[in-house]
Amino acid sequence: MAAPIITLTTDFGTRDPWVGVMKGVILGICPGARLVDLSHDIAPQDALEGALCLEAAAGFFPSGTIHLAVVDPGVGGSRRPLALRAAGQCYVGPDNGLWSLAFERGGAVEAVELTAREYRLPAVSRTFHGRDLFAPAAAHLASGVPLDRLGPAVTDLVRLLLPLARHESGLIVGEVIGTDRFGNLLTTVTEKDLASLDASRGLVVEIAGIRVGAPVSAYSDARPGAAGAIMGSAGRLEIFVREGSARLTLGLGRGAPVIVKRA
Amino acid sequence: MAAPIITLTTDFGTRDPWVGVMKGVILGICPGARLVDLSHDIAPQDALEGALCLEAAAGFFPSGTIHLAVVDPGVGGSRRPLALRAAGQCYVGPDNGLWSLAFERGGAVEAVELTAREYRLPAVSRTFHGRDLFAPAAAHLASGVPLDRLGPAVTDLVRLLLPLARHESGLIVGEVIGTDRFGNLLTTVTEKDLASLDASRGLVVEIAGIRVGAPVSAYSDARPGAAGAIMGSAGRLEIFVREGSARLTLGLGRGAPVIVKRA
Amino acid sequence: MAAPIITLTTDFGTRDPWVGVMKGVILGICPGARLVDLSHDIAPQDALEGALCLEAAAGFFPSGTIHLAVVDPGVGGSRRPLALRAAGQCYVGPDNGLWSLAFERGGAVEAVELTAREYRLPAVSRTFHGRDLFAPAAAHLASGVPLDRLGPAVTDLVRLLLPLARHESGLIVGEVIGTDRFGNLLTTVTEKDLASLDASRGLVVEIAGIRVGAPVSAYSDARPGAAGAIMGSAGRLEIFVREGSARLTLGLGRGAPVIVKRA
Repeated sequence: MAAPIITLTTDFGTRDPWVGVMKGVILGICPGARLVDLSHDIAPQDALEGALCLEAAAGFFPSGTIHLAVVDPGVGGSRRPLALRAAGQCYVGPDNGLWSLAFERGGAVEAVELTAREYRLPAVSRTFHGRDLFAPAAAHLASGVPLDRLGPAVTDLVRLLLPLARHESGLIVGEVIGTDRFGNLLTTVTEKDLASLDASRGLVVEIAGIRVGAPVSAYSDARPGAAGAIMGSAGRLEIFVREGSARLTLGLGRGAPVIVKRA
Repeated sequence: MAAPIITLTTDFGTRDPWVGVMKGVILGICPGARLVDLSHDIAPQDALEGALCLEAAAGFFPSGTIHLAVVDPGVGGSRRPLALRAAGQCYVGPDNGLWSLAFERGGAVEAVELTAREYRLPAVSRTFHGRDLFAPAAAHLASGVPLDRLGPAVTDLVRLLLPLARHESGLIVGEVIGTDRFGNLLTTVTEKDLASLDASRGLVVEIAGIRVGAPVSAYSDARPGAAGAIMGSAGRLEIFVREGSARLTLGLGRGAPVIVKRA
Repeated sequence: MAAPIITLTTDFGTRDPWVGVMKGVILGICPGARLVDLSHDIAPQDALEGALCLEAAAGFFPSGTIHLAVVDPGVGGSRRPLALRAAGQCYVGPDNGLWSLAFERGGAVEAVELTAREYRLPAVSRTFHGRDLFAPAAAHLASGVPLDRLGPAVTDLVRLLLPLARHESGLIVGEVIGTDRFGNLLTTVTEKDLASLDASRGLVVEIAGIRVGAPVSAYSDARPGAAGAIMGSAGRLEIFVREGSARLTLGLGRGAPVIVKRA
């Protein structure tokens, strides 16, 4: 049996050695773990951006994968350190909702607070729980330690309060919730939302009052320099500008209103 | 026997989770694959830069290595998805010539179009063939699936039309084809080109009419701040500025003319 | 027994394929090696920054780990290529002191100059010893080749001349020696330095004459926008600005004076 995969998602960047340090701690405990970076350039302390990263990625990893995520504005304060299992995978990180887009649709969630001293580093700082608490917990889970050995059960988990698209008579009202490196604008409108509309006469997408036409199925279906809408790789409607940046060209970001209606 | 190495080269950047997603898909299919990033910061859609990256790296990987490369301006359009074997290694990616500097000198090329549904993800988007087509194909090859099971043979492969250095009476006329992060200027002049010149009385290199002296064998052979020429790590003549950036200092980039002649 | 871990620390960046090339060379020699990146964004040729990176990370890796580090202003010149063993781990890289913060406290150091031709690539350039000398040496060590087979013993190793904090009557006088990506200022004041002060009536930290209060134990103990001092994850006193950059807010960097005294 192959050792579990541990993915890593942080806002640490890659200039400093902190991600490498977490990997050293993991491999010291679970030498066979296979490590995969998702992103270390989450905007500092932006739990929503971290949650969108895990949402886009978790479903493409095999059952048994452990997602270690440290975007942690509350480190050293009173937020709880957490490990949870849902939909056949595990999440290890702070109790701030980072995991909630990846797993909440998946049904039952089993969670514990990381209190057991034998599954931490001997000294736990108040500045780097990624190294001292979360990396050891992920590595022990990967080595076969049962979840409930890591600490007592937790049932009142923090969940992100995510804006959801609203359905009104014949239209969907959503908003922008994130951007990617190409300047595409990710929205709250999901595939399921779109599927609920009668699209027989075609659809029209508007962002901040600007019409960008019907959703296309490939970026190359838009004219160079023109804005378009597409169901993106993250399973969310995106606004893009072909060979350009929608964020810069439209001057819009998180919170900008998006409407989808019948043509 | 060690599982094959799969290298990854893309223009996806590392802020978004797309590289990690491809790795999740690969490890789900071929758990033992060893993954090595070459670069994820290829200039967007710049197939020539991707090809130069593969050229510099492929020869240092062992036989059996699979190079997965996704710099893919044509995704969702009509360009073919491809897997090929040449010189004891494989390449998986779009049919846009990305592979052609790494392998075309190596003789016979065996190539197929990726059409077999059982070696793709169940749903194939028009926006992310790296995840849906190329990562699965690379992983199945790594798992031992024969190349010709992935689809029908292709013989009319796209090759990059690369400018080549010209040999004129006693001199070589080339040009800049790329830059690296240090601002060094890579040229079309190769080691073989240089070897063809009678260098007994020394050589002189000029870029855009500026003399930069004879090729040196170490950066430290040039004076700080001065421009020099050197046979670089990629096997191509480079123009550099010691402790500086040739790109910024000389204000030159792709297409700038380079001449090598006898002193 | 799991194959050794090889960590990689360079100033190569990640845009060009050179880090990947070193990994290809390593895996060609030692297929089971587990590779962990510490940083490839060390400031160009800044051996002190590389040394601080290794200092922060080495202790969190298991015994037997090999640290390959290439921050190498002298490549192609007369500095010696080196492998050494200290404190149960190995270091491979140039003889410029990169290793000296990680290991010099650890007691005995056994070092050799990398001269044995059979443990190099067949052709050794004067521009890329990371690929041609250091990666092969690290991989052969990982494969079990004894250190003393790589070349003759070296005893007069280069060590970094690092400024150390001075202890004067009732106070510690140090300075800034580096920054991290968040703009925190790392100082020469260590945990051991601080422990030597009588802190019963509290301590006060000053940087360039600016009082930043007593050291706190979590970033969240400071007010947003305020400067503070904390014993950081690297084991060094750091000056930070909560939710900001001390480097930018205070306009200070390497060399700025730091004083710790009793309140």
